[in-house]
Amino acid sequence: MVKTAEAGGKRPKVSAKEAPAFSSRVIKFGEDEPLKLDCGEEIAPLEIAYQTYGTLNRDRSNAIYICHALTGDQHVASDHPATKRPGWWTLMVGPGKPIDTNRYFVICANVVGGCMGTTGPSTLNPKTGKPHGIELPVITIADMVRAQAMLLDKLEIPDLFCVIGGSMGGMQVLQWAVDYPSRVFTAVPIATAAKHSSQNIAFHEVGRQAIVADNDWLGGEYLNHDTNPRKGLAVARMAAHITYLSDGALQRKFGRNLQDRDVITYGFDADFQVESYLRYQGSTFVDRFDANSYLYMTRAMDYFDLAGDHGGVLANAFSGTTTRFCIVSFTSDWLFPTEGNREIVHALNAVAADVSFVEIETDHGHDSFLLETTEMFATISGFLTAAARRRGLD
Amino acid sequence: MVKTAEAGGKRPKVSAKEAPAFSSRVIKFGEDEPLKLDCGEEIAPLEIAYQTYGTLNRDRSNAIYICHALTGDQHVASDHPATKRPGWWTLMVGPGKPIDTNRYFVICANVVGGCMGTTGPSTLNPKTGKPHGIELPVITIADMVRAQAMLLDKLEIPDLFCVIGGSMGGMQVLQWAVDYPSRVFTAVPIATAAKHSSQNIAFHEVGRQAIVADNDWLGGEYLNHDTNPRKGLAVARMAAHITYLSDGALQRKFGRNLQDRDVITYGFDADFQVESYLRYQGSTFVDRFDANSYLYMTRAMDYFDLAGDHGGVLANAFSGTTTRFCIVSFTSDWLFPTEGNREIVHALNAVAADVSFVEIETDHGHDSFLLETTEMFATISGFLTAAARRRGLD
Repeated sequence: MVKTAEAGGKRPKVSAKEAPAFSSRVIKFGEDEPLKLDCGEEIAPLEIAYQTYGTLNRDRSNAIYICHALTGDQHVASDHPATKRPGWWTLMVGPGKPIDTNRYFVICANVVGGCMGTTGPSTLNPKTGKPHGIELPVITIADMVRAQAMLLDKLEIPDLFCVIGGSMGGMQVLQWAVDYPSRVFTAVPIATAAKHSSQNIAFHEVGRQAIVADNDWLGGEYLNHDTNPRKGLAVARMAAHITYLSDGALQRKFGRNLQDRDVITYGFDADFQVESYLRYQGSTFVDRFDANSYLYMTRAMDYFDLAGDHGGVLANAFSGTTTRFCIVSFTSDWLFPTEGNREIVHALNAVAADVSFVEIETDHGHDSFLLETTEMFATISGFLTAAARRRGLD
Repeated sequence: MVKTAEAGGKRPKVSAKEAPAFSSRVIKFGEDEPLKLDCGEEIAPLEIAYQTYGTLNRDRSNAIYICHALTGDQHVASDHPATKRPGWWTLMVGPGKPIDTNRYFVICANVVGGCMGTTGPSTLNPKTGKPHGIELPVITIADMVRAQAMLLDKLEIPDLFCVIGGSMGGMQVLQWAVDYPSRVFTAVPIATAAKHSSQNIAFHEVGRQAIVADNDWLGGEYLNHDTNPRKGLAVARMAAHITYLSDGALQRKFGRNLQDRDVITYGFDADFQVESYLRYQGSTFVDRFDANSYLYMTRAMDYFDLAGDHGGVLANAFSGTTTRFCIVSFTSDWLFPTEGNREIVHALNAVAADVSFVEIETDHGHDSFLLETTEMFATISGFLTAAARRRGLD
């Protein structure tokens, strides 16, 4: 049930149930409500696991949809059920935070293809009684967003005050603005791009090859054999994790410092702190993420190309938009460099859209959008406050 | 035998034999001539496989030593015996080329720990009758250079007109200048650094973890069981290969072009050219390179820290040097950025060394030193010609 300020509302009850394993609400779409995919196939039945924070106002006009990144999930501002750690955007979302849950109703769902309760490779296919595995059709960013729109329909939220997210989340934000322009009042894509670059596809392919090279991947059937390609997934995460940081941040944080030793050991142990850190990142990741989901998420990003979907001209994608955009990039982000964010700005300018753009000076790399970044908080807080005034949310 | 211009020379014959498997000359150092390693251990016996090009002059003063990079070898300017492809620096080395074999006598040996004929993890340990495997002590850049100096002693080449190399080769060049200053007339370190960065250690660790994660690695004993961690080594190569290029070069070369298809397949095949290219790089690499050698080579680079070896002050390493340096970097090289090369220049300036520095504008990334780079050729050709005049080689 959607928590609203409307006492005893007349709207029909939605089919939401608690899914204790993920501490999330889950909405189920039946065989008669298939999710139509870009590849031409359908997913039905479909489950979407989601979290909400704050209260939906009487006008149902204060909803902010947060789109999560590749390895994120719906646990934005509450503890993660597997790791017990705080949600991934507690700095941004909460009472008095830039996305103020005293003012806004925040929704975030695990994307289709994910592994935190929404239908994905690791969830059971009711038709076979086994996990979907890699029999699940390949998912695109547009598919993810289409599922999110179906969720909002169920929740009877006609439109969104804001759609916001970083990285793969930013791709979804752009897709929302393109596919559902009338449902998006403001859009905040952060540290993203309108298409995945050649270098980024290359890094994703390395991660996928690391997973499928693991003997325990078993052609994607590992869940049926009680195994897990832990080593391959850890290597994929390690490679990706380097791309989320920056040369400068690694130098500042670790440099050539040794790990719990005074001298090098002339061996292959983790002599250096940066090695120890990376190994830890790899080993903890496999406890919370599904290897097949990693294949699907990376593929969705690789396939993302908004201009390609609109005759090769990005501006065409945004033609006639009335959404207000706030685009944020970070100087040291070499995975989604400012240049790619600026391309979006130029496309929006070409269709005379309402767009503001901020490049934030930081050495934290791509991960900056998840970190304590005062300038980003101030930017987004200010943008939302002004937009709320326009929308009469004061 | 060293080929010299000296007819019927009186110098003692060196113990050089043809090693048909590698088409290289091999010099063997006996039990009484151990290679002393930084780790405190020794390697004896030791074999060094090398190639020469051109003719040593009467004064034995025209020798250029080329130091190869991580996955390079001694086949600089002649066909590679395994791949049958031209040597890795045929653009730079040969008659009339910048390193002109009509004027200079060129030597390049496979480094210790390598896998092209010099003692390394894949060569037989005569004491056990089995490959050394990871029982071989860990090798440093200084160990490689010490072995090269032993080779030159055998060849009775007292000093070098030039030591030159890129990347890991550049590290050896710097180490030569520091450890044997009187034997190095000129030094040309290209696209390198005086220490391996935190980010570079991190990328190397990913590669190593990919190898040891492969079930066929067998704790490093794979050669004793007729297996080969092909998949792990291929993943390591793929990850590393991305770092040798640049975002711009990948964009220009591959962009989001599809491989032999008109539309995406909604699957995990290599839809994109860049994926196909990377997979090819991985699969061909494992045919010519030993996985354990990859561990040793990457570790040698990680451990490289010239300043660390000299009280934390890089300039101390070069104190009193009379070597002439020519340092070359590339604008798009993000693995060994210009900044790291400039640190070497600053250290040399601090000891009033003779140094010239050129940063070359190119989008080819780190691999630029292996490619057709007109400005690099002109720079090195000019530098060597001027130095040859000073040394009376005209």
